[in-house]
Amino acid sequence: MEPKSLASTLFLFFLLFGTLAASPTLKSKPRPRRPPPCKRLVFYFHDIIYNGRNSKNATAVIVGAPAWGNKTILAGANHFGNVVVFDDPITLDNNLHSTPVGRAQGFYLYDKKDIFTAWLGFSFVFNSTQHRGSINFAGADPLMNKTRDISVIGGTGDFFMTRGIATLMTDAFEGEVYFRLRVDIKLYECW
Amino acid sequence: MEPKSLASTLFLFFLLFGTLAASPTLKSKPRPRRPPPCKRLVFYFHDIIYNGRNSKNATAVIVGAPAWGNKTILAGANHFGNVVVFDDPITLDNNLHSTPVGRAQGFYLYDKKDIFTAWLGFSFVFNSTQHRGSINFAGADPLMNKTRDISVIGGTGDFFMTRGIATLMTDAFEGEVYFRLRVDIKLYECW
Amino acid sequence: MEPKSLASTLFLFFLLFGTLAASPTLKSKPRPRRPPPCKRLVFYFHDIIYNGRNSKNATAVIVGAPAWGNKTILAGANHFGNVVVFDDPITLDNNLHSTPVGRAQGFYLYDKKDIFTAWLGFSFVFNSTQHRGSINFAGADPLMNKTRDISVIGGTGDFFMTRGIATLMTDAFEGEVYFRLRVDIKLYECW
Repeated sequence: MEPKSLASTLFLFFLLFGTLAASPTLKSKPRPRRPPPCKRLVFYFHDIIYNGRNSKNATAVIVGAPAWGNKTILAGANHFGNVVVFDDPITLDNNLHSTPVGRAQGFYLYDKKDIFTAWLGFSFVFNSTQHRGSINFAGADPLMNKTRDISVIGGTGDFFMTRGIATLMTDAFEGEVYFRLRVDIKLYECW
Repeated sequence: MEPKSLASTLFLFFLLFGTLAASPTLKSKPRPRRPPPCKRLVFYFHDIIYNGRNSKNATAVIVGAPAWGNKTILAGANHFGNVVVFDDPITLDNNLHSTPVGRAQGFYLYDKKDIFTAWLGFSFVFNSTQHRGSINFAGADPLMNKTRDISVIGGTGDFFMTRGIATLMTDAFEGEVYFRLRVDIKLYECW
Repeated sequence: MEPKSLASTLFLFFLLFGTLAASPTLKSKPRPRRPPPCKRLVFYFHDIIYNGRNSKNATAVIVGAPAWGNKTILAGANHFGNVVVFDDPITLDNNLHSTPVGRAQGFYLYDKKDIFTAWLGFSFVFNSTQHRGSINFAGADPLMNKTRDISVIGGTGDFFMTRGIATLMTDAFEGEVYFRLRVDIKLYECW
């Protein structure tokens, strides 16, 4: 190797590794590059909680409550301790009255006294010409954040053995009876 | 290549790809071929719900109920909102009195008012010479269907890091106190 | 190969494969060798159950109970049927008063009448310079065992798509109000 070439190689070396060595001092850690999802789906689902008077329209019901709560109104202290079981319609757009393409079924619970935070375990159940099978979800939902990620922990039928991430966004929130979530499902393991 | 051979090759080509091109017009989507499971296990488990009088035999208990329910009888509206915690014996055959090979432990909840549908989160816990460790399950159980699939979301011990599908079948259903499920576990990720 | 060398090779051969062939007769099945984790993390989390008088300090609350239970004291029969929702501080050491590095959020339920056994569904939620994102857990916790394994069923953010095993150990247990778990997280799928 000639001296000039060596010098430029060393220069390149420091350029590359000097940058890398410096990176830990950066305030926000660089996010590793992610592969693109093998499948992506966006849905909305609609939750109407039973309040003692809406039994016809309700899609969800309070089934667990703390000592200071009851079953027809979400408890104080940011609903801490409320467990809700639901069977919510899934739609392709944000209209509650659109024809459902499936059902979101499972439970959520409010788990923090200082702020609204939930934990979810549920499935999207499809049985149409477009999708057949289920996608299973679990994870924490700090619902005051604009978006939050939960895990796709498995699937059946068209979604056999799938895994991924679902990004939730509260699309509407009306009083304490109705909310609508937008779910952006990104699958990274497809079989 | 001779002209005749070319013609027959083209014919074969159209036969193959013409068929493929036509397939989207078929009404039922062809199911993609699945790999064979790396492990397969079949078990039964037995659920006896506490009704206020059977505390000795009961293996399950109502712990959550909607406003219109209580803890010793499953609620109206297809049990919508009932949450049940269980510790059920697992057997190799469909006999409740066979020696258990493990315990099915976790919860299920009824989540629909129009029809019986459930959501399950539970584990099979083994501690015998044959199997040691646990298999973890989650998913929707539309229990009026003859068979339905839930996800194997993980495992420990002999089932370290496993994933797969479990096909549930209601093998018996007696009143609202006893039911027996047949579980056909197909593991597709074995470590 | 010379005769002597052949003889010693054969000897070595039988030594190796004779042993392997004999192993199925051993009483305890040899555990297959596991790969090393791609990431390992140890944390503690602290659970203080609401007892009707400690609303300021409580991090957990009884939300489900069997017919014979209530919401301010864990039920008889080994707490069978109690469901508890929690938002517990996560610390790096075993000191409840250390600065939390995240929150453990979700639920556990007691699912056996003869002995203490639980089932857990929860997340570790991190939002610090060190860790951002969540780790999701599910599994059976036979809590009278010194250690027990549950599944890491997914993750988000820094723990994108992760899977693994978490080994739980009860590090402290004071009356029926406070307990502390040590969690040794071993991730085997890192993205």
